[in-house]
Amino acid sequence: MDKNTFALTPPMGWNSYDYYNTSADEQDIRKNAEYMAQHLKKFGWEYVVIDIEWYSCHGHRMNDEYQYIPYEDMAMDEYSRLLPCEARFPSAAGGRGFKPLADYIHSLGLKFGIHIMRGIPRIAAHRHCGILNTDVTANEIAEPNNICFWNPDMYGVNPKKPASQLYYDSIFALYAEWGVDFVKCDDICRLDMPTAKEEIRMLHRAIEHCGRDIVLSLSPGAAKIEEAWLYEQNSNMWRITDDFWDDWKALVHMFERCEVWQKHVTPGNYPDCDMLPVGKIGGWHFGERDTNFTRDEQITMMTLWSIFRAPMMIGADLPQLDEWTRKLLTNRDVLHVLNLPNQAMQLVRTDKEVIWLNTEDAADASGVGETVVYIALFNLRDEESIVTLHAEEHPELTGLLDGKSSATELWTGETVPVHEDVVSAVLPAHGAALLRI
Amino acid sequence: MDKNTFALTPPMGWNSYDYYNTSADEQDIRKNAEYMAQHLKKFGWEYVVIDIEWYSCHGHRMNDEYQYIPYEDMAMDEYSRLLPCEARFPSAAGGRGFKPLADYIHSLGLKFGIHIMRGIPRIAAHRHCGILNTDVTANEIAEPNNICFWNPDMYGVNPKKPASQLYYDSIFALYAEWGVDFVKCDDICRLDMPTAKEEIRMLHRAIEHCGRDIVLSLSPGAAKIEEAWLYEQNSNMWRITDDFWDDWKALVHMFERCEVWQKHVTPGNYPDCDMLPVGKIGGWHFGERDTNFTRDEQITMMTLWSIFRAPMMIGADLPQLDEWTRKLLTNRDVLHVLNLPNQAMQLVRTDKEVIWLNTEDAADASGVGETVVYIALFNLRDEESIVTLHAEEHPELTGLLDGKSSATELWTGETVPVHEDVVSAVLPAHGAALLRI
Amino acid sequence: MDKNTFALTPPMGWNSYDYYNTSADEQDIRKNAEYMAQHLKKFGWEYVVIDIEWYSCHGHRMNDEYQYIPYEDMAMDEYSRLLPCEARFPSAAGGRGFKPLADYIHSLGLKFGIHIMRGIPRIAAHRHCGILNTDVTANEIAEPNNICFWNPDMYGVNPKKPASQLYYDSIFALYAEWGVDFVKCDDICRLDMPTAKEEIRMLHRAIEHCGRDIVLSLSPGAAKIEEAWLYEQNSNMWRITDDFWDDWKALVHMFERCEVWQKHVTPGNYPDCDMLPVGKIGGWHFGERDTNFTRDEQITMMTLWSIFRAPMMIGADLPQLDEWTRKLLTNRDVLHVLNLPNQAMQLVRTDKEVIWLNTEDAADASGVGETVVYIALFNLRDEESIVTLHAEEHPELTGLLDGKSSATELWTGETVPVHEDVVSAVLPAHGAALLRI
Amino acid sequence: MDKNTFALTPPMGWNSYDYYNTSADEQDIRKNAEYMAQHLKKFGWEYVVIDIEWYSCHGHRMNDEYQYIPYEDMAMDEYSRLLPCEARFPSAAGGRGFKPLADYIHSLGLKFGIHIMRGIPRIAAHRHCGILNTDVTANEIAEPNNICFWNPDMYGVNPKKPASQLYYDSIFALYAEWGVDFVKCDDICRLDMPTAKEEIRMLHRAIEHCGRDIVLSLSPGAAKIEEAWLYEQNSNMWRITDDFWDDWKALVHMFERCEVWQKHVTPGNYPDCDMLPVGKIGGWHFGERDTNFTRDEQITMMTLWSIFRAPMMIGADLPQLDEWTRKLLTNRDVLHVLNLPNQAMQLVRTDKEVIWLNTEDAADASGVGETVVYIALFNLRDEESIVTLHAEEHPELTGLLDGKSSATELWTGETVPVHEDVVSAVLPAHGAALLRI
Repeated sequence: MDKNTFALTPPMGWNSYDYYNTSADEQDIRKNAEYMAQHLKKFGWEYVVIDIEWYSCHGHRMNDEYQYIPYEDMAMDEYSRLLPCEARFPSAAGGRGFKPLADYIHSLGLKFGIHIMRGIPRIAAHRHCGILNTDVTANEIAEPNNICFWNPDMYGVNPKKPASQLYYDSIFALYAEWGVDFVKCDDICRLDMPTAKEEIRMLHRAIEHCGRDIVLSLSPGAAKIEEAWLYEQNSNMWRITDDFWDDWKALVHMFERCEVWQKHVTPGNYPDCDMLPVGKIGGWHFGERDTNFTRDEQITMMTLWSIFRAPMMIGADLPQLDEWTRKLLTNRDVLHVLNLPNQAMQLVRTDKEVIWLNTEDAADASGVGETVVYIALFNLRDEESIVTLHAEEHPELTGLLDGKSSATELWTGETVPVHEDVVSAVLPAHGAALLRI
Repeated sequence: MDKNTFALTPPMGWNSYDYYNTSADEQDIRKNAEYMAQHLKKFGWEYVVIDIEWYSCHGHRMNDEYQYIPYEDMAMDEYSRLLPCEARFPSAAGGRGFKPLADYIHSLGLKFGIHIMRGIPRIAAHRHCGILNTDVTANEIAEPNNICFWNPDMYGVNPKKPASQLYYDSIFALYAEWGVDFVKCDDICRLDMPTAKEEIRMLHRAIEHCGRDIVLSLSPGAAKIEEAWLYEQNSNMWRITDDFWDDWKALVHMFERCEVWQKHVTPGNYPDCDMLPVGKIGGWHFGERDTNFTRDEQITMMTLWSIFRAPMMIGADLPQLDEWTRKLLTNRDVLHVLNLPNQAMQLVRTDKEVIWLNTEDAADASGVGETVVYIALFNLRDEESIVTLHAEEHPELTGLLDGKSSATELWTGETVPVHEDVVSAVLPAHGAALLRI
Repeated sequence: MDKNTFALTPPMGWNSYDYYNTSADEQDIRKNAEYMAQHLKKFGWEYVVIDIEWYSCHGHRMNDEYQYIPYEDMAMDEYSRLLPCEARFPSAAGGRGFKPLADYIHSLGLKFGIHIMRGIPRIAAHRHCGILNTDVTANEIAEPNNICFWNPDMYGVNPKKPASQLYYDSIFALYAEWGVDFVKCDDICRLDMPTAKEEIRMLHRAIEHCGRDIVLSLSPGAAKIEEAWLYEQNSNMWRITDDFWDDWKALVHMFERCEVWQKHVTPGNYPDCDMLPVGKIGGWHFGERDTNFTRDEQITMMTLWSIFRAPMMIGADLPQLDEWTRKLLTNRDVLHVLNLPNQAMQLVRTDKEVIWLNTEDAADASGVGETVVYIALFNLRDEESIVTLHAEEHPELTGLLDGKSSATELWTGETVPVHEDVVSAVLPAHGAALLRI
Repeated sequence: MDKNTFALTPPMGWNSYDYYNTSADEQDIRKNAEYMAQHLKKFGWEYVVIDIEWYSCHGHRMNDEYQYIPYEDMAMDEYSRLLPCEARFPSAAGGRGFKPLADYIHSLGLKFGIHIMRGIPRIAAHRHCGILNTDVTANEIAEPNNICFWNPDMYGVNPKKPASQLYYDSIFALYAEWGVDFVKCDDICRLDMPTAKEEIRMLHRAIEHCGRDIVLSLSPGAAKIEEAWLYEQNSNMWRITDDFWDDWKALVHMFERCEVWQKHVTPGNYPDCDMLPVGKIGGWHFGERDTNFTRDEQITMMTLWSIFRAPMMIGADLPQLDEWTRKLLTNRDVLHVLNLPNQAMQLVRTDKEVIWLNTEDAADASGVGETVVYIALFNLRDEESIVTLHAEEHPELTGLLDGKSSATELWTGETVPVHEDVVSAVLPAHGAALLRI
């Protein structure tokens, strides 16, 4: 099994967290999947991912006090494996787990993903529950001080105990039975706990053992650049920042992260900038809101994700998607840049502006053709400004603009002149342009 | 209730940890208490303290793998209060707890102490057990990420919940019923967790609420000198180093700690240098051994504890005490220095030698008499050396040696000349002298 | 020589920094000294201290860019010893140094102090200048990477070279010739550089060697509480915070520092809370201003300094002192508390209020009399509030208030009732009361 | 000017530091250059680099006390630019600088490099020396607290002052006049000081301004992986560890560094593993010695540098090179791997063994041929062991070994069987094999 064949281009989909937090139920998931199948699938969107605590029945019942209620009962089988709460996911009744829901999503031509927490349920350890295909009990592999700092559900497992791998094997065997295509494992990517590195390897082996092509996504960030090889050997995407929300400062910070990780975007390997907080979000707690990002900021975000080639997971509640946002997410020219086969590179980054480059070999079958150049220009200033690329300052551009006299801006479709290797755009505050030349 | 009246001189006693670790049972405690009553009590030794995990029945069953076996059953009442394991403490049967054992120890003219861990049992939180005199359950006050780094038994409690104080009140009410005189609370002194400061205050209030004079001892160290006032307002002794064992480097390090804490020794308040690892120790794990300290090092330790006025808790298994060690622990002249009313002070500390001073007002009823001076000389070198005090270099000594021509060394009883305010002793490697002048 | 006899009560004086920064000249100093002699001396104020860079002729010439102009010429003798800039201090002409100015200040019945920087001038090292009474040159003892983080004048010296002590001896010999009574050494107290501990010892020995009673003051803070013994063995006062200015948050923070250091106030030893930024200050840079502290905040500051017994160094330009501020600084009852022989203690500290206690044995010659109790109440809230002391909660007060029915508030002279061991005051926002009972 | 054209393959040469430290003189350099021209040049070795403090005349005169004598005179022109000490480099007499020596080295068909320290001489700042083409003096741009932690010569410069760039321009203009081909700038790569990032950019611009193709090498490490883009935009090589010497642990650690930096080896950009401490080294201080590395360790080092494609700078005194070492450095097959156009990748790294891969497209002109595979196997164990590559575990190898039945080990020339995609070698303790398949 070659994990680098699971996701040859950046995964595109929807994740329940930004809108539903811990409260998504079967109807919520189905409605979002149906919207995706109808309106987004043809543009490449395909993953439907249920985020955190689908095994918990309390939902957001006490969310004035807790995001995750501690010590509550969670649906779990006799082998310490968490199951969907049947009250929230009725199709899971009778021990069928997520299989019926996955089947439905597959029937729409989409793929199905779930979120898990690193480790084994605390309650399984305290109750001495079993582990499939072993005579070991959960308390023997769960480490009592190996906890998640922000969620009370699990204990990390002891990598020196063979049963720890077997536990991970057992949950992925179950996920494979269900038909899961994508697993986002949380509390692992930034390696808060000493066992996390080995637990990443265990996850990868569990996927190999289960025999199903399951994309492995690691959270939360910031991932450690020193451990890039570890992520690349074992996973498909890894979060390079902490949770990303609709805040301009966080978006500015993402440019720094993308600089650092730019050499690590290869087929099957994607530094992950987190969900796209667009449209209606935050439905779960303080009340639904529209994204705080301006339209220009959203274009900046989409342009950065596209040129950098980050996985795109929509945060909005899809059935409520407005027309403007839907178009933002379905610009074929922009998504073409996301799916280019080459690695992009940053040409300029100051606290005022950023410029990125990618290229595409556009030779036709007879070998005739030339290299298409994609330039993303970003204006980080709080006011409108001209952002200019002087190609002669960048050896990487040598020859690439020869003989070219115009560019197409992919968001507007407008033509922009290119003169003596200089490319310019007047950009609004926090705005961007994505040029094809 | 005035906590500073509980222990007007440094507490002296025996603690089960250095020999028995987690395995002490009722017979072990009784034998040690009986030895103390017979041989040591007349010198001032009085506390018999059962250290960690008396509520656990597993003892040291798996001590090749764990010191503290996680997720094991612990004896606990319906109010989330831990109880002595009846298999180990038969007299606790029938819900009598430690009362029968405490009664027996009191009958010997001694005092009874126990060790507790900060917080509430994890299992009580997971089981939603009750809290005495409230309608609150343990899960409502236990914080899931507020753990001890080295012991898996407890969760810390949320100081903002009134029931947290009521839980501490409930356990001290039980200890008062049992007749406990001394509580050593662990996982609290060095403030590893953010709630620890407030939990120290809760412990103090719980003792005030229970109405019994219970000495409060905080562990483990190193205590934070910046928080000295907190310790002094709320406890009687607090550990100023991590666990102390029979290692010369650890003993050298103690001189540094005593320097730092010297102004904080007052009636009812004792910076704590931990147990005296003398005689037979380590019976619980790798097999019983004699202390690794040389006799000179033991004299150095006892001299430092005495002049600094640290609590003295014997680590040895008392019934096996050899003659030399027994004499070490029962030198009336040395223990007189321990019990002086004044604060001592460090005069010299280099990496080669250390000198301390204390004084005693020896006026008789008619006001006639003079100040008795106590000087402790320490040789930290690895070879024999003369250690000399030049009184004229220390303003603190002005006038104190006037007219004095000799001193008595309290370990040997020998007379040492004092000439022109110079006091000298030839000390063996790692040795000490304690002079009365 | 016994350093603890130099300053039996907290030093009181004026320091040029808060108003003049690096610009004070001879006239400035004389005018302030004359004011002190005329108006303040009778209340105990006596030290006149010239702060940083009296050896520099550039004053604050470039203060838009630098506080301390690097690589400028400094007045220096052939032995690498800095001298007053003669342009600023004309009486220093002819190699007389500060002697004429010191003589003048002594003639007013006052004492004379100067500020120095740790180490030896950088320029002396680069020029290979000599060191008095040695054949060593400055480059041989100056450590090139041992610098001050905020001032460019000096290199620290190598404590392993005997000439380093001789250099410190040589400067203190000069200061003794001049008649200096007080030296504030900067860049040393918080031990930023590894040699600073040994340089503190060298300073102390240099004072002993020079034969003059010179008070040694160490800056800047925060001093390290772990090194209290070092400060106490070698100096008279040490800064327990970084530079203190007229900012309420900084004053609130001082309560925390005073708690930590309360056991270290003894004759000749004073944790130092820095200058009193009252009256006209900041004359040197942005333009003169009145203190930003409200009157209530100034009373709080003076009350804290008095009860804690901190050195008092006025920051104001004295000739411009207004009537209210002059009275603030010359309240005999308050200054009596500053000069009490006993150590005070903190009774309460929360983020809302603070209470301190000191006592005075007021027995007359026949032994008749009782203990006078001083209570300082502080209201840290941003609004008026009653602050109440419940004596029964504080064992330290046992018996002290027996039979007492009223107190005198020392700032207002008003009488306050004391009833059943409860003392209360209505305090304005950020205000204080100082009660004699 | 395109910096990425300066060094299309990893620079290969000799550096004076490992043998001569600060003492190399003109004869030393000439002898080493002559040896290189005669024996090594034909294998690709070409750079002759004079390392630190060629401007100092004191050489290693006081090396029992200092490596770098502080505050000594250094040869410097009126524009604050350091010059070769004429006593050590006689051909520099008359202000000719390094031009005559560079000319001589060029006449041998070699390239000439020098070492510099970040910043401007401290003494130039203290003396207020000039800066070429400006009316600014050194004191105006030198920052007094911006120092090197381990060398006393320089102050860093203020990037906000335009004259700082002009100073860097002025020294590179001089180096271009001399004919310098390679500059190793020290105290800059690991960004110890806040200005270092901007000083890297200033160095790059100074090279562009000088108009000569000068390879820029940054020291010391460890470089920060987060700043890879900065290094790549501005320099040609950057040190990824601190100074590397002949110590096995340091070599083991280099595998970790190479893993981290593997994606950053591109034409003109080389993560730098430091000099090769082979042959006779350490001539300068404790007396000349042979490398402490075993022969197997040297093979491991050369194999790692080759497969990773690190710059190779010989540390040995070349005229004393023994036959074995000379062969080690002149294995054409191994050096072919160093000069491959592709990036290599790590396949395996544990604490016991490491495996790396590179490939070469060996198609002939007609497009016939296949990919040549290079595999480096490393045994980190302290005993002989078989190291085995299972190709099927590495998707990167898919198809690459198809139909291949043997490999050639490039150090021994021996043939090794390849069977069913498994490649094995029996390796001595700390040994390596480099296979061409």
